[in-house]
Amino acid sequence: MRVKEIAEILGCKVKGDGDLEIIGVNEIQNAKKGDLTFLSNPKYEKFLKTTKASAVITGKEYDLPLTQLICDEPYVAFAKALSLFYKENFPEDYISPETTVGKGTEIGKSVYIGDNVVVGENCRIGDRVKIFPGTFIGDGTVIGDDTVIFSNVSIYRQTVIGKRVRIHSGAVIGSDGFGYAFSKKEMRIYKVPQIGRVVIEDDVEIGANTTIDRGTIGETVIGSGTKIDNLVQIGHNVKVGKNCFIVSQVGISGSTVIGDNVTLAGQVGVAGHIKIGSNITVGAKAGVTKSIEKAGVYAGFPIKDYRVWRKTEALINRLPEIYEKIKKLLSKGE
Amino acid sequence: MRVKEIAEILGCKVKGDGDLEIIGVNEIQNAKKGDLTFLSNPKYEKFLKTTKASAVITGKEYDLPLTQLICDEPYVAFAKALSLFYKENFPEDYISPETTVGKGTEIGKSVYIGDNVVVGENCRIGDRVKIFPGTFIGDGTVIGDDTVIFSNVSIYRQTVIGKRVRIHSGAVIGSDGFGYAFSKKEMRIYKVPQIGRVVIEDDVEIGANTTIDRGTIGETVIGSGTKIDNLVQIGHNVKVGKNCFIVSQVGISGSTVIGDNVTLAGQVGVAGHIKIGSNITVGAKAGVTKSIEKAGVYAGFPIKDYRVWRKTEALINRLPEIYEKIKKLLSKGE
Amino acid sequence: MRVKEIAEILGCKVKGDGDLEIIGVNEIQNAKKGDLTFLSNPKYEKFLKTTKASAVITGKEYDLPLTQLICDEPYVAFAKALSLFYKENFPEDYISPETTVGKGTEIGKSVYIGDNVVVGENCRIGDRVKIFPGTFIGDGTVIGDDTVIFSNVSIYRQTVIGKRVRIHSGAVIGSDGFGYAFSKKEMRIYKVPQIGRVVIEDDVEIGANTTIDRGTIGETVIGSGTKIDNLVQIGHNVKVGKNCFIVSQVGISGSTVIGDNVTLAGQVGVAGHIKIGSNITVGAKAGVTKSIEKAGVYAGFPIKDYRVWRKTEALINRLPEIYEKIKKLLSKGE
Repeated sequence: MRVKEIAEILGCKVKGDGDLEIIGVNEIQNAKKGDLTFLSNPKYEKFLKTTKASAVITGKEYDLPLTQLICDEPYVAFAKALSLFYKENFPEDYISPETTVGKGTEIGKSVYIGDNVVVGENCRIGDRVKIFPGTFIGDGTVIGDDTVIFSNVSIYRQTVIGKRVRIHSGAVIGSDGFGYAFSKKEMRIYKVPQIGRVVIEDDVEIGANTTIDRGTIGETVIGSGTKIDNLVQIGHNVKVGKNCFIVSQVGISGSTVIGDNVTLAGQVGVAGHIKIGSNITVGAKAGVTKSIEKAGVYAGFPIKDYRVWRKTEALINRLPEIYEKIKKLLSKGE
Repeated sequence: MRVKEIAEILGCKVKGDGDLEIIGVNEIQNAKKGDLTFLSNPKYEKFLKTTKASAVITGKEYDLPLTQLICDEPYVAFAKALSLFYKENFPEDYISPETTVGKGTEIGKSVYIGDNVVVGENCRIGDRVKIFPGTFIGDGTVIGDDTVIFSNVSIYRQTVIGKRVRIHSGAVIGSDGFGYAFSKKEMRIYKVPQIGRVVIEDDVEIGANTTIDRGTIGETVIGSGTKIDNLVQIGHNVKVGKNCFIVSQVGISGSTVIGDNVTLAGQVGVAGHIKIGSNITVGAKAGVTKSIEKAGVYAGFPIKDYRVWRKTEALINRLPEIYEKIKKLLSKGE
Repeated sequence: MRVKEIAEILGCKVKGDGDLEIIGVNEIQNAKKGDLTFLSNPKYEKFLKTTKASAVITGKEYDLPLTQLICDEPYVAFAKALSLFYKENFPEDYISPETTVGKGTEIGKSVYIGDNVVVGENCRIGDRVKIFPGTFIGDGTVIGDDTVIFSNVSIYRQTVIGKRVRIHSGAVIGSDGFGYAFSKKEMRIYKVPQIGRVVIEDDVEIGANTTIDRGTIGETVIGSGTKIDNLVQIGHNVKVGKNCFIVSQVGISGSTVIGDNVTLAGQVGVAGHIKIGSNITVGAKAGVTKSIEKAGVYAGFPIKDYRVWRKTEALINRLPEIYEKIKKLLSKGE
């Protein structure tokens, strides 16, 4: 494809030679002749002068001989450019003879089911669904059209999965919530039966080895468009809203409700039975122990407004120095 | 079942109509006519007036038209009520032809082994054990009666698993501990062979994608009645006592010994080669770097008595304000 | 074997009876007659007097009747001793009929492939490789000689794995990185196609349920000799150097570059797009948000020099006491 053709699809302005032939997309530091690359993070600006790429997608005009595709959202344009040059090459229309499909299960058109997959009874599998080897799907599960489930995933009974969902290897959906009732009178732990289910709405992506527990009663819900990274834990009866980003190793305790457009950065922990409103970002490693209503950026443990947290952390860093001053005051005061 | 019959089984006092027919159990905010619900967490008290449930299990008498089942431990009663209305409907007495069972392995009565399970050589599988599809069980493993192992679990050789244990999907039991010896003289890393095993006692529950390493030599032990949540890491030669609760994403380093009735809340980290006594609760995200003997509640990193931690955290939150005052003092002092 | 024979192999000096017969290796507190044990961690010195072991590997001479094998690096000697007495007894030269091997895949000599393994198309599997049941290996994957892959591992397409690598159960290698481009103009999330791959160099060990994402474009690389514990997350395009130790539940965000001989202790989090130099140790639970160049030991969140962190933490612990003093000063000042 020529630069000008790509620019038109991506909605970019061309500065330089629009007739250049592009044969692939690559990172700025590794790009070769014929590659299109991009600059989004300013940390990588230094590579602009040395890159061997034929053209670069940027957010502003640079005074460089390199051909530029300029647009407001270069990272979005880059994502679209990658999709132009790369198509996932999934198997299609093949159900392995090494697969078990339970009674009463309906399977759509153009489905791929790999070896050693077990699909339980009374499931509904939509059109163009791909299920990779070793995955287990419990009885009564519903999977929407165009959903991809990678290898060795475990989906417990009665799970509802929407359309265009991607579930990565090793993820576990619908395991029992961590619910026990301790009787002091009997000095005995009772397991609370976990009889609810998990509902994953459309366009959700779930990372490798992430775990999502079924509701105790009722549902654990992941809202449409939400993206969940690897090794995340989502407790029973949690409701996550739409278009959230839940980064790796986050843990959300039971019955907590999270709004739309929420980002929880890596290793955040969220207590149970609380509410996080919409349009909230929580910084890495934070611990959310109380409900947050107001849109904004938060950090720390216990959670604080991000600016307050920065200020507090700066003072903590200065504690040794401040303490020296206090000691002087104290010695004077005596 | 009628309210009065249920109340008798649960040991509750009835206030209201004991002849009401109950057909299911549901959450207070979603209950419908015919449902029994419960109130344990005071956060949900507001739903008492609007719930459509026919009856509610509570810890005290409310002045409401709703029929109440009153008892000291409403959450325990709720757990029992759920068990009355819901039975897990597991397959029984079926060993899939798609299963491999090694030489010398003995299998008990009424066992279920799903498709694509591999059971190694010289194992002993107790009566009424259920093993779901895709699970691997290494040579020489012993599994007690009534234990349930869900799909895609990996159990390494020589593991000992008690009775009535539940192991959720994706859990890994008996992987090598993280043991290496670094020789400065040779500038070379030697792997320490991990030749011990894991022992899981009776009535333990292990969450999805949790990992428990085998002993280097000797055993890693999970004491009877202990409940472990999802994505927990338990290092080599750790001994966990009886009736502990290990919440999601906790990590316990090698050779640490934990007493009975210990609760480690979410994302807690515990150093290696230390001891945590019995009847200890450690708050979420805490880091335990030294042994704790005394029963009580702890939090923070490094760990502190919970009340001290609260006080310290409150002061940290007030640092910006306190610092302003100190600055005034300092300016006066000059 | 006799003590003097073992001592010669391990490079130890014998104090006591060199003709003693050793039949096994055991922990100091559990050793029996005929066992060789070791003392490396001084916490276990108290067991020297009571151990029933026939001989002990130590770092210095003790005035005890016990036969001693004395050397500079007792833990290294212990690792070697264990290897003398214990050999992993893996199956060999057997490819299960329950295995699927794709077109164009080449398999070396003396390979073991267990039941229900799926190997994709155009893979190369080296000599003496062992692949345990339920593992999935995507198209175009290369696996070097003597590598061991345990059960239920998922390896995505095009992964390159070196020689003598060990990958524990449930690990996921090559899943999609967490890459999305959010268009404010369109109010829409675009998935960034993840078209790169993972390269695992020689002598790497990867823990159970650890996840390593493929590069967006380009590679995610784990350098030779690096050891990764259980439940670790490694993001897209991360480069980890040689001979690093990445302890359990660490998370490393995308595009970060880590040098050689780096230790990240348990539950550490590392931000994306930063650089950690060589010969750096980061303490447990720390959060690395900025690049670190200088060799040394670091801790805390945000990260600090370890000694500064200790000092700061000590002051934080003394905050209640210091605050009392400040209050007095303030009351005087008024």
